[in-house]
Amino acid sequence: MRTGVWLIGGRGSVAVTSMVGALAVRAGLAAPLGCVTELPELRSPAVPALGDLVFGGHDVSTVGLVKKARDLAAAGVLPAALVEAVAAELDGIEADLQPAPGPADADQASPTSRGPADGGPPASQADAAARIVADLRAFRDRHALTRIVVVNVSSTEPAATPHPAHADLAALRGALGTPGAVLPPSALYAYAALTAGCPFVDFTPSTGARLPALAQLADEARLPYAGSDGKTGETLLKSVLAPMFALRHLRVRSWSGVNLLGGGDGATLADPAANAAKTASKQRVLGEILGYEPEGHTRIDHVPELGDFKTAWDLITFQGFLGTAMRMEFTWHGCDSALAAPLVLDLARLTAAAHAAGVVGPVPELAFFFKDPVGDAPHGLADQWALLVGFVGGLSDARA
Amino acid sequence: MRTGVWLIGGRGSVAVTSMVGALAVRAGLAAPLGCVTELPELRSPAVPALGDLVFGGHDVSTVGLVKKARDLAAAGVLPAALVEAVAAELDGIEADLQPAPGPADADQASPTSRGPADGGPPASQADAAARIVADLRAFRDRHALTRIVVVNVSSTEPAATPHPAHADLAALRGALGTPGAVLPPSALYAYAALTAGCPFVDFTPSTGARLPALAQLADEARLPYAGSDGKTGETLLKSVLAPMFALRHLRVRSWSGVNLLGGGDGATLADPAANAAKTASKQRVLGEILGYEPEGHTRIDHVPELGDFKTAWDLITFQGFLGTAMRMEFTWHGCDSALAAPLVLDLARLTAAAHAAGVVGPVPELAFFFKDPVGDAPHGLADQWALLVGFVGGLSDARA
Amino acid sequence: MRTGVWLIGGRGSVAVTSMVGALAVRAGLAAPLGCVTELPELRSPAVPALGDLVFGGHDVSTVGLVKKARDLAAAGVLPAALVEAVAAELDGIEADLQPAPGPADADQASPTSRGPADGGPPASQADAAARIVADLRAFRDRHALTRIVVVNVSSTEPAATPHPAHADLAALRGALGTPGAVLPPSALYAYAALTAGCPFVDFTPSTGARLPALAQLADEARLPYAGSDGKTGETLLKSVLAPMFALRHLRVRSWSGVNLLGGGDGATLADPAANAAKTASKQRVLGEILGYEPEGHTRIDHVPELGDFKTAWDLITFQGFLGTAMRMEFTWHGCDSALAAPLVLDLARLTAAAHAAGVVGPVPELAFFFKDPVGDAPHGLADQWALLVGFVGGLSDARA
Amino acid sequence: MRTGVWLIGGRGSVAVTSMVGALAVRAGLAAPLGCVTELPELRSPAVPALGDLVFGGHDVSTVGLVKKARDLAAAGVLPAALVEAVAAELDGIEADLQPAPGPADADQASPTSRGPADGGPPASQADAAARIVADLRAFRDRHALTRIVVVNVSSTEPAATPHPAHADLAALRGALGTPGAVLPPSALYAYAALTAGCPFVDFTPSTGARLPALAQLADEARLPYAGSDGKTGETLLKSVLAPMFALRHLRVRSWSGVNLLGGGDGATLADPAANAAKTASKQRVLGEILGYEPEGHTRIDHVPELGDFKTAWDLITFQGFLGTAMRMEFTWHGCDSALAAPLVLDLARLTAAAHAAGVVGPVPELAFFFKDPVGDAPHGLADQWALLVGFVGGLSDARA
Repeated sequence: MRTGVWLIGGRGSVAVTSMVGALAVRAGLAAPLGCVTELPELRSPAVPALGDLVFGGHDVSTVGLVKKARDLAAAGVLPAALVEAVAAELDGIEADLQPAPGPADADQASPTSRGPADGGPPASQADAAARIVADLRAFRDRHALTRIVVVNVSSTEPAATPHPAHADLAALRGALGTPGAVLPPSALYAYAALTAGCPFVDFTPSTGARLPALAQLADEARLPYAGSDGKTGETLLKSVLAPMFALRHLRVRSWSGVNLLGGGDGATLADPAANAAKTASKQRVLGEILGYEPEGHTRIDHVPELGDFKTAWDLITFQGFLGTAMRMEFTWHGCDSALAAPLVLDLARLTAAAHAAGVVGPVPELAFFFKDPVGDAPHGLADQWALLVGFVGGLSDARA
Repeated sequence: MRTGVWLIGGRGSVAVTSMVGALAVRAGLAAPLGCVTELPELRSPAVPALGDLVFGGHDVSTVGLVKKARDLAAAGVLPAALVEAVAAELDGIEADLQPAPGPADADQASPTSRGPADGGPPASQADAAARIVADLRAFRDRHALTRIVVVNVSSTEPAATPHPAHADLAALRGALGTPGAVLPPSALYAYAALTAGCPFVDFTPSTGARLPALAQLADEARLPYAGSDGKTGETLLKSVLAPMFALRHLRVRSWSGVNLLGGGDGATLADPAANAAKTASKQRVLGEILGYEPEGHTRIDHVPELGDFKTAWDLITFQGFLGTAMRMEFTWHGCDSALAAPLVLDLARLTAAAHAAGVVGPVPELAFFFKDPVGDAPHGLADQWALLVGFVGGLSDARA
Repeated sequence: MRTGVWLIGGRGSVAVTSMVGALAVRAGLAAPLGCVTELPELRSPAVPALGDLVFGGHDVSTVGLVKKARDLAAAGVLPAALVEAVAAELDGIEADLQPAPGPADADQASPTSRGPADGGPPASQADAAARIVADLRAFRDRHALTRIVVVNVSSTEPAATPHPAHADLAALRGALGTPGAVLPPSALYAYAALTAGCPFVDFTPSTGARLPALAQLADEARLPYAGSDGKTGETLLKSVLAPMFALRHLRVRSWSGVNLLGGGDGATLADPAANAAKTASKQRVLGEILGYEPEGHTRIDHVPELGDFKTAWDLITFQGFLGTAMRMEFTWHGCDSALAAPLVLDLARLTAAAHAAGVVGPVPELAFFFKDPVGDAPHGLADQWALLVGFVGGLSDARA
Repeated sequence: MRTGVWLIGGRGSVAVTSMVGALAVRAGLAAPLGCVTELPELRSPAVPALGDLVFGGHDVSTVGLVKKARDLAAAGVLPAALVEAVAAELDGIEADLQPAPGPADADQASPTSRGPADGGPPASQADAAARIVADLRAFRDRHALTRIVVVNVSSTEPAATPHPAHADLAALRGALGTPGAVLPPSALYAYAALTAGCPFVDFTPSTGARLPALAQLADEARLPYAGSDGKTGETLLKSVLAPMFALRHLRVRSWSGVNLLGGGDGATLADPAANAAKTASKQRVLGEILGYEPEGHTRIDHVPELGDFKTAWDLITFQGFLGTAMRMEFTWHGCDSALAAPLVLDLARLTAAAHAAGVVGPVPELAFFFKDPVGDAPHGLADQWALLVGFVGGLSDARA
């Protein structure tokens, strides 16, 4: 059951950390910390093993994987010794990384499209999608893969411009053939993935598969999709702390947060448009869990010096018995790539298993992994966990 | 279904806050914030209403309830207007507060026993227990109560001195008749409560009913008991944060905490012997949830200036994917009495319902409320909640 | 040496806290905590006593002083008993509070100008200034004051629109006679104060006296002026922490801060234009002290629930020996009015003493009190303190 | 003006970081961050240059310097590239590191004394002192040094046992000749240093030169000495924050702190006896600066996982105008060796200059560097800085 993992943004920090980690863990050089599919409750013969994964992807960046991994080691994200131990294998993945046909990439600062050697820039988004489909099929054939899961780990894109064709699959197919951008890059990749018969996972807050036309396409193609926005830090804490206040019948009066981050995503999010998408999904979880909206906002600030290490600070004020005013605050100092990468591996493996078991459409059972889960899903972490455990158990039964 | 709530330490901050709150909420002057039995998931006809509760208790202190309530208002723990609104009713409870026959009281600094008017100091612990039993029976008769739940909210006592009679009920009964202390005060109250046919709840980390001889007594008398050590702050956070790390397969390397508190309990806990009992129960939850013991300690320091408001700070260091080192810290600034009082009301009501339904022995289903739950109980808050919801549902069914 | 203190925004939180405090301290009901002129190093016969101060002011708000003081007591800013103890005296100040002739007031949401009873709205800013001057003169005569210090404690106004007449006093005098707004409200008050022979202090980040034309006016009138932006919280900490890093030759890489505040000023600062003025003055101090600009920003967010209590959180990352990366963070939970009010009293007293001693123009020696001091002043608190101590000593000598 | 720097605990983290840093800075491989003598205000021809320093020392540990430096690089304390760049030079220092003749060393867990090849264990402390003196003289001759400064950077020792001979030099000289321990190790090293004509600096809270008999010796030998307890983290912050509260006339009600540290010193300080010495010197600074003792304690906990990186958290509650209660807290995450090492270099250079200028006895002008300065010194950082700048200026004048 060899399973392809095709990463949009395949040369970015999260992608490369995922690759290095998968290679290191399968070689026995590191424990699978951070990988929840390796917990006893989620072990299942229905889920492909880490060793079954084969990596490929698109990116506009041309930085070599080994170079990028060494940069991450210098920044304290990866252990240098591990990078060297897997460098040759990592270099072997280069052959499966393709230049992005459009601007949906990990480094939007250089949205170069393919040059003449690649057949020139695509004439339309339909053309670009066709190239992506071809890349996916070639990858499948080359490695004799049972299936490929496409995961978007590129930088957050600005909020998408609405377009009438987003509402209907037939209209979308028509519109894509005309010049100009109908879909934002993340959605174009989702369109191409589903067209190629591949499940799609959006680890970012971008549009991805979350358009009615793409829901129709997933349904037509009998494919599952999951997302959005990997839950790696402040929102993870919200998803356990907000239920605590709710279960104790304490009234949250305000919840304010600030996220300081460097790195590629930090620079992108300094753009207020992208920022708005991300901060909204960060605050939404509170209303969903508490049943009311406390005061306060979540801010994101770019501080390049912090690199891949993100510091989030939250202040929560609340009322208890007879209105007594109380407060708590927390600081979270996490390495974004190290938190995200194992979840990317988990999602690829679980979505592959879901596909194998015949799951179609949005998969809310994967809400455990996301800030803004698709479908009708709980927002508290404990409920999400119970749902996930049941889901994985069901996959095994389906398979048996 | 009038239900007595007999509070050991009935003139202390937690007890008086419970009384004022119950009176204010039933009068419609305040919302039942902090009372979890008022959440939709726990509403049940099997649980006595707040309006069904009748208060009494023992204390060595002789400070008037209204005086104490006004002191709490001056300290910012209770709203002054609420105290005045219920002052007359609160004063009416005075008739049901008895002097402690022994040293198990809210103010261990002045362990006066009853004077000549009360028949002189007790000749033995059997004699002291008999007086407590008599007080409980008189309370029941005076108010025509269906049952009484005895709740220990007195100050934490030092770790108990072991005694052979703790292991066997018959031996205990024999030993109590001799002069000298066989049981620590909290256990003597538990003995008397069970002897009088009353369920017992220990909201403190003291011994309470946690002796084999007392387990035999509860079994013999067909009574439930619950405890220990109300979970109101730092440990509440541990019980949601530790599962978060576990579910995400993140390895907690160290968890260090410091609790700064003033107030009566702060002074008691400055005593290293009492401190040891409390800090041990605070740290135990981590091993239970994580399956291993991280480095670090929990410290308690007495800072009188902080009064009833407690500040806890915790530092957690953890490892993620490929060993990457990360950390979080939190500060909790809570009012201990305001957090504890509604839980005392919840416990009285739920334990009364358990008794009515025929529950006997330790009640691990109430683990949601405790740092160090009796019986075989989960330590993660979400699991404790699920257990509690099922338990309350079962009580309704039993009753129907 | 009876000294008038004329407060622009005289019905706001800072003004009323100043009045209540001055009355309470002079009555011996409270210690002068927070008043630096009461420290031994600054005691001087040249400085008028607290008991010499007479209060008046302008405001667009019409809320009574006693009502406002009681609101502040309910919000935990003032002790209720103190408010009642001085209520009669506080009410006596009402006679010296005038409606604002224009929009420079404590509550910019209702910028009503004087109605017909007051002679109708002013026809020009010259007319408005003339009314302010008349109010000041009437105040001086009514109380036989030696001098009046005008202090702006109204809400922060948006960044001012430049106008050519700001650069020259003669041009300004001409322009003020024409219809329309030439000066922002704070500068119009400064113009009127200086015209009436009164020293001017700006406790806000607004324009105030900081225009070339007004500097000329102060020089012509032989008057001192001081400002801007009282240093009450986060910036106070910056002014001691930044020198610490500098003196230890540690390189600050980033300094990020967030200020969460409710209250009137919080609402005003939610306006990005006002916010920009304030955050710029908050960050400037770092560059001045360190000699370079670290990364990072200072944000202000409005959280009404926090009321007058402000929470600021700052993260500082720095490098030490051989480039080792380190960090510190702090949380400041201060009551803005309680921090500002004693400084307002200090500034009124010190500026009066400066005027008496013949000081003319900007007074950088008062930099100790300000985020963004006028003139050529040091930014580290210790240097500012040394400068202030020397200045006050000099005033005594000048007087002797 | 070649100057010897003789480090007691010469194979410990602080010593090796100092050596690597001095070599790297003089080779132009790193900026002298953290070295205050490199600030413009302290540049002086009277102070020996970094390039003039020659290193030697005693230690009971036998771990090689290069090995230790590589361990520090692996722990993130030193950049690996720098260590390799200076490895050969570092190895050259091995020849000047002598085994400790007694137990005063960086690693008290293995207090081996010199073996037979070294002449067997010393018969008395006089004998041990004589060996130290001989080592110092040999070091001076071998490198033709103008002078040697002895700096104690070994682990903190337990509080010393009083001995009558501590009070008088003659009595001390007599007692040292008898078997048994008269002086704690740090004081024996101070005795030997002064006897050999070398100034002594204690960077630890141990006894060092702080005995009347040793003060007599320094006076007799016309030598300066300095200490105690390098101010690298929490106390550094106290020395700027406490003056801030004092200068603003804010009343500090409580100041509580906890220090979590791993590494060698952490293990030593887990010993309550050593802990007591250190926490007392940490809290003393508050009383000295504020003029009163706030509530609260400073705790030290050993958390091995933290390694050389120390996390300190402090909570400060304070009162302002009219008694309003406010608070601040801070977290400091510093690398102890990286903070200490440049100060060790500074102290060696400044003490050498003081010696050259004829300074004799305790040097309170170096209080800037210490938690618990010798002599009559200010405790606020700004006052300490002013004193230091004046002192260094005076040394230049003395030299000119």
